[in-house]
Amino acid sequence: MLIQNVDVLVVPEAGECTVETAQDIHLDDTRITAVVPTGNRPGAGEVIDGRGLLAVPGLINSHTHSPMVLMRGAAEDLSIDDWFNRRIWPMEVNLTPERVRAGARLACAEMLLGGVTTFVDHYFHADQIAQAAIESGIRADLAPTYFSSLGAEGIDAAIATTRELATLHPRITAGLGPHATYTVSDDDLRRTADVARADGLRIHLHAAESDDQTQASLDKHQATPIEILDRTGVLDAGALIAHGCGIRAADLPILERHAGRTTVATCPKVYLKLAMGEVTPIKQLQAAKIRVGIGTDGAAVHNTLDVWEAIRLVALTQKHREDDAEWMTLSDTIRLATRGSAAAANQPDTLGALEPGRQADIALLDLSGPHNQPLHDPRAALVYSVRPSDVTTVLVAGQVVVRDRQLTTLDLAETLAEARAIAHTLTDLSRGGAVQHYNP
Amino acid sequence: MLIQNVDVLVVPEAGECTVETAQDIHLDDTRITAVVPTGNRPGAGEVIDGRGLLAVPGLINSHTHSPMVLMRGAAEDLSIDDWFNRRIWPMEVNLTPERVRAGARLACAEMLLGGVTTFVDHYFHADQIAQAAIESGIRADLAPTYFSSLGAEGIDAAIATTRELATLHPRITAGLGPHATYTVSDDDLRRTADVARADGLRIHLHAAESDDQTQASLDKHQATPIEILDRTGVLDAGALIAHGCGIRAADLPILERHAGRTTVATCPKVYLKLAMGEVTPIKQLQAAKIRVGIGTDGAAVHNTLDVWEAIRLVALTQKHREDDAEWMTLSDTIRLATRGSAAAANQPDTLGALEPGRQADIALLDLSGPHNQPLHDPRAALVYSVRPSDVTTVLVAGQVVVRDRQLTTLDLAETLAEARAIAHTLTDLSRGGAVQHYNP
Repeated sequence: MLIQNVDVLVVPEAGECTVETAQDIHLDDTRITAVVPTGNRPGAGEVIDGRGLLAVPGLINSHTHSPMVLMRGAAEDLSIDDWFNRRIWPMEVNLTPERVRAGARLACAEMLLGGVTTFVDHYFHADQIAQAAIESGIRADLAPTYFSSLGAEGIDAAIATTRELATLHPRITAGLGPHATYTVSDDDLRRTADVARADGLRIHLHAAESDDQTQASLDKHQATPIEILDRTGVLDAGALIAHGCGIRAADLPILERHAGRTTVATCPKVYLKLAMGEVTPIKQLQAAKIRVGIGTDGAAVHNTLDVWEAIRLVALTQKHREDDAEWMTLSDTIRLATRGSAAAANQPDTLGALEPGRQADIALLDLSGPHNQPLHDPRAALVYSVRPSDVTTVLVAGQVVVRDRQLTTLDLAETLAEARAIAHTLTDLSRGGAVQHYNP
Repeated sequence: MLIQNVDVLVVPEAGECTVETAQDIHLDDTRITAVVPTGNRPGAGEVIDGRGLLAVPGLINSHTHSPMVLMRGAAEDLSIDDWFNRRIWPMEVNLTPERVRAGARLACAEMLLGGVTTFVDHYFHADQIAQAAIESGIRADLAPTYFSSLGAEGIDAAIATTRELATLHPRITAGLGPHATYTVSDDDLRRTADVARADGLRIHLHAAESDDQTQASLDKHQATPIEILDRTGVLDAGALIAHGCGIRAADLPILERHAGRTTVATCPKVYLKLAMGEVTPIKQLQAAKIRVGIGTDGAAVHNTLDVWEAIRLVALTQKHREDDAEWMTLSDTIRLATRGSAAAANQPDTLGALEPGRQADIALLDLSGPHNQPLHDPRAALVYSVRPSDVTTVLVAGQVVVRDRQLTTLDLAETLAEARAIAHTLTDLSRGGAVQHYNP
């Protein structure tokens, strides 16, 4: 297959991103084989006309809970305590495999249409999420969620699911999913780290989500969440840490010792909306050699799975946080969203750049709309004005999954109807109870 | 004309916003005459099928510099000093009536397609902006910009333009446009206030944009920008203050004395992007009875004229600022964006609500897309997930200006081609000089 005569976003490991105009992207079954100046068609195979379009690495949603689209807009204007204890965890009593599957299917549809080709997920019934991902054509890294409150049996089941998913399909990878340092005991984190090391699995969990959590951890355990991850072996095994807004200066040397196997996912819309006080200290993490990716978190708080929105908010909130409009430049933001998120997806060498040998996960953008014009700098458009509706074509592993802004895999009307039909079952709190209590 | 069987957003002066389903909106030439449960068609006239759509008051961009779309993406990752002194004000040496007209036309296209029916503008060659607004079908409140550095002749010309525009067209209103307290002398502000009172004109200007500006004003003039507006009579005459992030506690009683004739426009994307330190203190302003509207500012910093994006960022940044996730609720955010912005547009009784007697400025939204579904709460969709591409139909003063997501007034391809053709003329700094120097 060939994407012909397309402009290509080039994201180097350091320095300025550029756009190479009039390129051909050659693909084999699943990978990019060459990116060269446009020329004659070399042989048989499908040709996608790229004229007037910009090819970018497919976006990566580096931390989400995809089935939570079913709760979109059902938990608004709440403190983080009430959000968890009065809405989300009581609602999650209603989760069933079928409902999770339907939610994940809708999430995959939303993400693919917006140019997202990989999502890094953390949720219950992850086997169902895998099936939705496989049928939709998206790539997914899945961590089956567990709390210590589930008991040994529940944790065993989650670990068994991880092992099954890890070999299920070429587009599915899997990690271990302890929920957080405040919902999983040190003993269970130690066991998780042991399994991770033994099986070569990565751990994906929430930690130091806010400074309030860090302070609570110090008060209760005389250790920050990062110190807990260190002493339980989680950092040594390798972890994706969601949020990390409460990472303190004293945590940075600890993280730096594990830099090669630690990544952090940042989802700033959530930190603002839940008034969590701070955003992820990306500048300090990068100084400690920790790679950072960008995600949306679940739509029960982010309301969309729009990674463009998340990218934009990273640039805006980081400039604000550092009080420096020259920080988090266009190129650095794009690098976070591509190479950084590929690292957060645990696939730093196969995703996140349009280079020979990497997976053919590609989004084609039409930047001709009035909100992007005139186009003085396409990198500025990518960070500050592009919308999901500018995505015309999406490939994952060389398969066209969105063509002319339409899904080629899922039936969108059916997917929407299914989600609408079950949405009320999630918000029904008549059964009582909750999957967990938030008291970090 | 009739919009039949449509859901209607109801925004009360206080309390919860609601959605009334299955309504008919009856219009005469320019105004809403009735909003009633759907029923039989009462007579002749065009019928717009509203089934499955949500009608909302047309959005109001309560502070912008529309022709600056021509500089979109041309001034990135810069401190506010460099943004003004190294890019924007040197570029503005290149402004001509023709270029301003072309930029304003593109801006009107972008805004109308995103559901914006009114913009409150502050720029040079405002007569050209008026012509673009008239031909596009949008409503505009225009303030011709002036600095004291233009001299008496330049200021006279700007005031004369205001007077001409004020009677030009039913969809055009005009105000006086001194640039800011730091670029217009106290004497010129006094003269502006005198003209405003004598002619019944409103003043639209920048003031207390950041706390740095407020401190600089105290250091240089022993007065805050708000105190300068007070002592020069600007507040007494009536003003729309753009930004006001640097409004201090001591300024609030001064503003409260002029509450009925003072409004503030907030554009938070800009405050984050330029690292201005703080966002507008809306909670404190509202406590002082000052009405606040929402805007984008110019696209040379905001990159889009997407008022949905601005609305979302107001909710997010206000929760963050006040450290309170329960503050700036869905209903309060929507009220700012509608009734608040109508007040900022100096038309509090004619715009901003879908009520009999008000202007028929209406946007119809299709919320059936995957990023809005399931729709547990349409108000949450309006604040946190709607995109400009969800706007299907737009009416201004009863005229359909967007139908099936297409402009009925401007030729979009021609408008884009024109803007692209001249974009390079704006960024050409070979002439040297600048329209002003930033040193507040």
